[in-house]
Amino acid sequence: MGSIGVVEPHQMNFRDALPLQCGASLSDYTLVYETYGRLNADASNAVLVCHALNASHHVAGMHAGAPRSEGWWDNLVGPGKPLDTQRFFVIGVNNLGSCFGSTGPMHVNPATGRTWGADFPVVTVEDWVDAQARLVRALGIERLAAVIGGSLGGMQALAWTLRHPARVKHCIAVATAPNLSAQNIAFNEVARRAITTDPEFHGGHYYERGVVPARGLRVARMIGHITYLSDDSMEAKFGRELRNGALGYTTQDIEFQIESYLRHQGDKFSEYFDANTYLLITRALDYFDPAGAFGGDLAAAFVPARDNRFLLVSFTTDWRFAPARSREIVKALVDNRIAVSYAEIDAPHGHDAFLLDDARYHGILRAYFERVAAEVAA
Amino acid sequence: MGSIGVVEPHQMNFRDALPLQCGASLSDYTLVYETYGRLNADASNAVLVCHALNASHHVAGMHAGAPRSEGWWDNLVGPGKPLDTQRFFVIGVNNLGSCFGSTGPMHVNPATGRTWGADFPVVTVEDWVDAQARLVRALGIERLAAVIGGSLGGMQALAWTLRHPARVKHCIAVATAPNLSAQNIAFNEVARRAITTDPEFHGGHYYERGVVPARGLRVARMIGHITYLSDDSMEAKFGRELRNGALGYTTQDIEFQIESYLRHQGDKFSEYFDANTYLLITRALDYFDPAGAFGGDLAAAFVPARDNRFLLVSFTTDWRFAPARSREIVKALVDNRIAVSYAEIDAPHGHDAFLLDDARYHGILRAYFERVAAEVAA
Repeated sequence: MGSIGVVEPHQMNFRDALPLQCGASLSDYTLVYETYGRLNADASNAVLVCHALNASHHVAGMHAGAPRSEGWWDNLVGPGKPLDTQRFFVIGVNNLGSCFGSTGPMHVNPATGRTWGADFPVVTVEDWVDAQARLVRALGIERLAAVIGGSLGGMQALAWTLRHPARVKHCIAVATAPNLSAQNIAFNEVARRAITTDPEFHGGHYYERGVVPARGLRVARMIGHITYLSDDSMEAKFGRELRNGALGYTTQDIEFQIESYLRHQGDKFSEYFDANTYLLITRALDYFDPAGAFGGDLAAAFVPARDNRFLLVSFTTDWRFAPARSREIVKALVDNRIAVSYAEIDAPHGHDAFLLDDARYHGILRAYFERVAAEVAA
Repeated sequence: MGSIGVVEPHQMNFRDALPLQCGASLSDYTLVYETYGRLNADASNAVLVCHALNASHHVAGMHAGAPRSEGWWDNLVGPGKPLDTQRFFVIGVNNLGSCFGSTGPMHVNPATGRTWGADFPVVTVEDWVDAQARLVRALGIERLAAVIGGSLGGMQALAWTLRHPARVKHCIAVATAPNLSAQNIAFNEVARRAITTDPEFHGGHYYERGVVPARGLRVARMIGHITYLSDDSMEAKFGRELRNGALGYTTQDIEFQIESYLRHQGDKFSEYFDANTYLLITRALDYFDPAGAFGGDLAAAFVPARDNRFLLVSFTTDWRFAPARSREIVKALVDNRIAVSYAEIDAPHGHDAFLLDDARYHGILRAYFERVAAEVAA
């Protein structure tokens, strides 16, 4: 297995207005993307990778002059890796509203000449998928061999089969859910409140003041991070270990290693992530609910996907999107007699497992992609 | 079953310095307490109730002129109730560092003449129990018939048997744990960071500025509240219900009922609770770890309690202090051949179940207290 090496992001501008679920539309927007591998002659070997909350188009490879800049799914995507770039043409795309290059709240609203800020339209999973579909067509691909994503990325993969079922064959949705539970929404809401009540948030118009609601972003990330890890893996990694070997009897300084770790995660995140993007992306999570339009009948929602093929993967210790949530999707597909493979991986790492290199997990993805490759003669 | 009716808090001042685990000591401190029922002639029918994070000495009954001021465990304590005040003399005491009357960070440090603020000593479960033991003695009670508490209150009940085993017979510890897990500490730490990074916190010296870190307290309470409820009960109560019937596509306003509920809980809490108290109490939770001094051997920690009797109760859907944590305590007691009864209640309400009136739960407490009453001829 080799590495992809140095990759370069591209960008594509779109002039045609994109109608959004919220009723507004976006015109003159840009999507940033990367590609790995080569598109074959009949453009049948393309695989789209959808990103989750804090990731981007930079799925694999490195950026020039930036050591340790491996893409977020570099362990999966590359020559000889489970998603093999010697066989597939892999596309990573940054979603609208993000802070990694595609049009978002930190950019200028062409209609007003001012920074969007909190006025950036509230985009949804469906909007993202529609924008991705335009990009894919512009790259000369009428039909994707597969779309793959984990967590929020898995929701996008599912949405492809509902909105553009003829333009994709296989859907690989990992560690995802058919919608958020009340508890999932609750965690998102606390994170949002931490951000929006930060005095530096200024109602979402902080760019022009040259400030950043870093305190809120830190707390938001700390909350999120707890939900990405399993109770057991946190216990195994940190337990009750003290940072200085003995108690300091302090309420404001760090006593336990887990505190140090969480603060570090929060600090790092607040330095690179945008607060308005955090709000937009958590809302996209909250809103995703394909069964909603069918009175909660998920099987009815999946009728359009009847010619698609699915692989679902969940992880036993994922309490954010527990295996039971994936099984709801499997049941809806089976009820429609849609071909679905399902793997429940016994992994200790909680929700984050979808990003890690687990032998059984990657073995399943490798085998599935080999089947896809055989179909398209990749 | 009747109600206790109107009750009045009392206070007791202590001049003798109380040595604390942190190495400091508190002199000239006050404890606020309430009592219900009558102490019998040989002072053998007293039961101490220990409070958890946001509660107080006001366990049962009402305060004069304050409708809806029922104590926090009024469903348990009263004439004819499971902890029957016609048979027992019940004591509720507010812990040191609290914001409900006992000496705390909002009071004046007699040594400096200035408000304690963040300089209030970091008190522990063991310190609280030592202070409670002095109060109990001052009330003329050499030995409690029982000590009872839930959650952090359960930790105090356990600590009584380790620090003052001869001064209490029965320990009833509900929905508690022998220590916090890394995940438990992590949630506490995020809540503390929300408070301490609120610009109105001023390093814990906000009283003299006439401000309150309300934003931080709100977020802290929202986080805590999620961990008190089970995923299922939140789902059953709120699900994905929208507040206005249709999506508003907004990142800052309320969309879902669960958001409205959490914000309300946060707002209410920030109006009555003190930020320094929140820090102190979460630290007391973090620090509690009786096995810590015995290399993690919980059975060794419980050797002093060999003449005590225990009832432990846990709730199936409590993911903050799961039944497995109570079972660790049961095992440590059994390893010491200490008499212990254990009930695992199949209740849907998560950690909060210990405050609710569940028939099986209250039935078990009633039966246990009847046994205790028979022993002391109450």
